[in-house]
Amino acid sequence: MKKIIAAMLLTFLLTHCVQDTDTGYPERGMIPDKRMLHIGIVVKNIEISLDHWTKFLGLEKRPEVRMAEGHEANPTHYRGNPSNAKAKLAFMQLENMEVELIEPVGEEASHWKEFLDTKGEGVHHIAFRVKGMEENHYIENYNKNGLPMVQHGGWDGGEYGYMDGLSSLGVMVELLEMYDN
Amino acid sequence: MKKIIAAMLLTFLLTHCVQDTDTGYPERGMIPDKRMLHIGIVVKNIEISLDHWTKFLGLEKRPEVRMAEGHEANPTHYRGNPSNAKAKLAFMQLENMEVELIEPVGEEASHWKEFLDTKGEGVHHIAFRVKGMEENHYIENYNKNGLPMVQHGGWDGGEYGYMDGLSSLGVMVELLEMYDN
Repeated sequence: MKKIIAAMLLTFLLTHCVQDTDTGYPERGMIPDKRMLHIGIVVKNIEISLDHWTKFLGLEKRPEVRMAEGHEANPTHYRGNPSNAKAKLAFMQLENMEVELIEPVGEEASHWKEFLDTKGEGVHHIAFRVKGMEENHYIENYNKNGLPMVQHGGWDGGEYGYMDGLSSLGVMVELLEMYDN
Repeated sequence: MKKIIAAMLLTFLLTHCVQDTDTGYPERGMIPDKRMLHIGIVVKNIEISLDHWTKFLGLEKRPEVRMAEGHEANPTHYRGNPSNAKAKLAFMQLENMEVELIEPVGEEASHWKEFLDTKGEGVHHIAFRVKGMEENHYIENYNKNGLPMVQHGGWDGGEYGYMDGLSSLGVMVELLEMYDN
């Protein structure tokens, strides 16, 4: 009986916890499922870009623009330091995913601004849903695998982290957690 | 009776064919449906990027890399001129879409190379399926709406066009047609 339990335990460990010894990547990948929630595009002027997108998609209603600011429940941090970074955001629903437009506002440092200043307008990140960003050691694991977190923030109902995949995947990864589901 | 037919015709024209007089955008948008097929990421070295992506997604099988070359049925054109541009391609299937990796090969001019040289590695395009690229005047319409075609090519079973949405949408649009469906 002990042998069976030991074998089961070993099988579980091998299939669930083994990491690629060369790279440290978890064997089952770094996202819980392969559903891309949205792509996030950094733009200079969200009003102008939104006009183009609304017409490109033929939307009946122009999506609303809202301001994303730090929230006391999850204050914004950029490269480890507190930041008052703000951005105007708008979301557009496609059939299988969303498109997010982001215009960094003001001079406060943020990865949105860093990206716009160094690469110009373009696709900043691809977003995936996670559960338990802290408890499941996402940030630690991404850091270990060469995708350090460069910005973190949120609100009272959720949080996000931008993981730097620019040099490995060619794009930033946003990990997005909603506490209520 | 004639009045009814005339009214029906007018209604049809108004709802189907009217364009925004300010911009020339078709009222129903510029894609037949809002399903994003894939995002295309231009990279310097597809083998290295594919290793990262395979591990990031936790894929059991590393996707194959194939060479995209011009085909006599649809020879490649870049900014109006014939081009022998080549690229290595790989596709990864996610739950709701695909990710394409593209490594431009050789010194021949292409928009892949232009993008890599000017902006570095990153998301080059978002792709949508179309039917009748030529018969339905897609290229003409996109051009009229400020998204000129900068590269066109294909094979015996289909064709693609890269439409320059960089300054309006923040990303290139790939129109992709498959002749058999």
